[in-house]
Amino acid sequence: MIENGEQILLRAEGREYFAVAGDEKPMHTDLGIVDLKAVPGREWGDTIASHKGVGFTVVRPRAPDLFRHMKRTGAPVMPKDIGAIIAYTGLCPTDVVLDAGTGSGVLAAYMGIIARKVITCEASEQFAANARKNMQKAGLHNVEVRHADILQEMEKLQGEGLVFDVITLDLQDAALAVPGARKLLRTGGFLATYSPFFEQASAVRAAVETEGFQDIFTITVSEHEMEYSKRGTRPSTRVGHTGFITIARKF
Amino acid sequence: MIENGEQILLRAEGREYFAVAGDEKPMHTDLGIVDLKAVPGREWGDTIASHKGVGFTVVRPRAPDLFRHMKRTGAPVMPKDIGAIIAYTGLCPTDVVLDAGTGSGVLAAYMGIIARKVITCEASEQFAANARKNMQKAGLHNVEVRHADILQEMEKLQGEGLVFDVITLDLQDAALAVPGARKLLRTGGFLATYSPFFEQASAVRAAVETEGFQDIFTITVSEHEMEYSKRGTRPSTRVGHTGFITIARKF
Amino acid sequence: MIENGEQILLRAEGREYFAVAGDEKPMHTDLGIVDLKAVPGREWGDTIASHKGVGFTVVRPRAPDLFRHMKRTGAPVMPKDIGAIIAYTGLCPTDVVLDAGTGSGVLAAYMGIIARKVITCEASEQFAANARKNMQKAGLHNVEVRHADILQEMEKLQGEGLVFDVITLDLQDAALAVPGARKLLRTGGFLATYSPFFEQASAVRAAVETEGFQDIFTITVSEHEMEYSKRGTRPSTRVGHTGFITIARKF
Amino acid sequence: MIENGEQILLRAEGREYFAVAGDEKPMHTDLGIVDLKAVPGREWGDTIASHKGVGFTVVRPRAPDLFRHMKRTGAPVMPKDIGAIIAYTGLCPTDVVLDAGTGSGVLAAYMGIIARKVITCEASEQFAANARKNMQKAGLHNVEVRHADILQEMEKLQGEGLVFDVITLDLQDAALAVPGARKLLRTGGFLATYSPFFEQASAVRAAVETEGFQDIFTITVSEHEMEYSKRGTRPSTRVGHTGFITIARKF
Repeated sequence: MIENGEQILLRAEGREYFAVAGDEKPMHTDLGIVDLKAVPGREWGDTIASHKGVGFTVVRPRAPDLFRHMKRTGAPVMPKDIGAIIAYTGLCPTDVVLDAGTGSGVLAAYMGIIARKVITCEASEQFAANARKNMQKAGLHNVEVRHADILQEMEKLQGEGLVFDVITLDLQDAALAVPGARKLLRTGGFLATYSPFFEQASAVRAAVETEGFQDIFTITVSEHEMEYSKRGTRPSTRVGHTGFITIARKF
Repeated sequence: MIENGEQILLRAEGREYFAVAGDEKPMHTDLGIVDLKAVPGREWGDTIASHKGVGFTVVRPRAPDLFRHMKRTGAPVMPKDIGAIIAYTGLCPTDVVLDAGTGSGVLAAYMGIIARKVITCEASEQFAANARKNMQKAGLHNVEVRHADILQEMEKLQGEGLVFDVITLDLQDAALAVPGARKLLRTGGFLATYSPFFEQASAVRAAVETEGFQDIFTITVSEHEMEYSKRGTRPSTRVGHTGFITIARKF
Repeated sequence: MIENGEQILLRAEGREYFAVAGDEKPMHTDLGIVDLKAVPGREWGDTIASHKGVGFTVVRPRAPDLFRHMKRTGAPVMPKDIGAIIAYTGLCPTDVVLDAGTGSGVLAAYMGIIARKVITCEASEQFAANARKNMQKAGLHNVEVRHADILQEMEKLQGEGLVFDVITLDLQDAALAVPGARKLLRTGGFLATYSPFFEQASAVRAAVETEGFQDIFTITVSEHEMEYSKRGTRPSTRVGHTGFITIARKF
Repeated sequence: MIENGEQILLRAEGREYFAVAGDEKPMHTDLGIVDLKAVPGREWGDTIASHKGVGFTVVRPRAPDLFRHMKRTGAPVMPKDIGAIIAYTGLCPTDVVLDAGTGSGVLAAYMGIIARKVITCEASEQFAANARKNMQKAGLHNVEVRHADILQEMEKLQGEGLVFDVITLDLQDAALAVPGARKLLRTGGFLATYSPFFEQASAVRAAVETEGFQDIFTITVSEHEMEYSKRGTRPSTRVGHTGFITIARKF
């Protein structure tokens, strides 16, 4: 049963809208006005009619929906890369994660859906504010967006005696945060960095080696889509190069 | 604190071993014998000495550890593909998942770490038995391995009124299971299929279109590793083609 | 020394123009008017001034110049694929080549630059006319563009007792032309087909196997460009999938 | 008609042998002894019987045959990369080419088949000797292998007033030879460098920019093979990363 205040995804005729069940303000769409106060008490998957009689299916938003609907402040980490980070760090529901370089918060949100807690640091106040709104919109109360310099924040977190299972860095100068990441990681925990440029990846690579991380590897992930049409089938590039991912483990 | 009966990963000098904390039988290794009865009560990350004085670090196993240590009965789905399936279905801790074509159980285990419950069906009795052992070894009590024909099992599950958030198919004849998958999926839920061969992917693709799935796409994911050496850096093929992944959503 | 009537490439300030040395008509450009009658007798690499005093360097056009300047009637075969066809067939200056599916003539032109003689067949009269102009413009007198159905033309060529060292097919129904290609190829000669779609490639593949070709392989070639900028270096996809190339040899 | 002394390729039952028509020494094979003195006067494509009655087809060797049969002293440049170099430089039969870093001579041989003349320099005396034998075996009398340091050789060639249409560098320190290459290239001519490692490619890139080359780009070419089997069709990596190719033009 859908409860009052829950995030919902409404979908009709290929269009979709994020909303909150029970919102006093009705939702205006090209397919008519939808009374959101009528949603609480209904079941997930039910259809709600607009005043024009168009049926909107109500579903619980999932991560790919957040990806499409979060307001972006730059190029987000793509699902192919997020998936690789999740798989190679073995992200799980008991994890406490530190993320730096929030940006729009796409990676933090994906991790927040799976992990117990995510603290994500963003140096730009404007980006941090936007990411905070994105988390609110997504109903991700376990993702805390901090407007902070990651190096200073790492010292502070260390002072508080906090330990993380996974640390992710999507920063220009990620290499500088590697020593702090090592101190804050639990033994057996994973560091994952994402670097669009080769030179950044090399700097991170050198840093994780210097800091004594183990099981280090650096990869790029690419994705090709099969295009099915009447003329035939062919591969195309869905997402080409986006970044170098370095995975390293603390022992 | 590590409790009696918990799965542990012991690591020393680059070697690693799976074990159970409190096991009556000591663990024999090249680096000496480790008394597993001494483990419960210790903290994660602590070091336990073998009778030869070699220190073994004890950590909680994470998904990549399971991937390396599960006994395989065939080519497993690789992390790059598992990651894509997790990211594109938005797998989350409240999900109930149906998986078919268990094989060694690698995909089921990865999903079991994140999801609430995974039912995985395997047609081969021998493979099912092996996968069951793998889940036990991994301490994944929420992954139920069923020795069953997926088409028959789907009818049975439907009779029981069960509904799934995500269904994954890694079967030669995955296309045949697509209609059943549609019936068992929750509205807004995702189907993900994995097909090593092009012809299988095309059959799945036709089936998901016929069954009225939406948001359909078929991708291949490839992974290149950057090789860092004294001579320089160069990309190499870490994992080439493994399979075609088709994602489709029920509305 | 540049002779009267030779094709020339004029280049100044990053712009370039094709022209004919000795042309009565002067060449009008944004950088001034160039008197083409003044070109014969000059050396390759010399600079010719426009009436505005801008120096145009005169060079002999090379294949990549033709690629950029030929008038296109559709998507041409790309240099990466042309290169693979040249390398895998071992195209050489004594070769006589049959090409079908001329299109704009880019592949035929590239081969004409290397081989002794290229006969290229195009079913569309309009495309054939355009390709003929392209060859003229390129000064490729050894490339003969025929407006013809390739199956009929193959029978005719066979009747004339002609034999080819290399046959290239860039046709939707290339599979249908495989038996004729086998008859027209010299022993030890190569067939190369180019198919944008998977299903076409499979049909060609089945045909070359049925016809008893040897050393068969089917590849796709992809090209990534390294982007060098002040921010750093990263790979990008310069040209993704274009087509499946099947190489087969007659023995 | 096959003449005395010509290089021939003999092929039977999937095996193949290089030989010289008219050689006094008969060729010993698993399929019997072949009398090479009987070959001159026969036609290309004819079949010659061994003393065991096995028919060997005699064909004129083509570039891919040389690639397989040249004796290697290291990892050769692969056909996919050779093809790209040929296509992007527009190599043609009137070209005079300077090549440095001969290695086994595979690239020089491929270019020698197309171009008028190739001078190729190799710093290792042993490699140069091997490459010379390879050229002899291939009948490539227009490929001159020089045992020389390329920097010194470039000065010497400059002193002789020689000019090249295409210069190719497959050297660890290719960047150092870029200024000399610029001096030796004809206006409108192409430089192509091949660098296995990223750092080398970056150094070359910086050098060609400093030297004022134009139309610069750096690419990697990869090749995937479609595997056709009874189980189905799937792509595989035929040749992954081999090197970075930088193309630059002199104006």
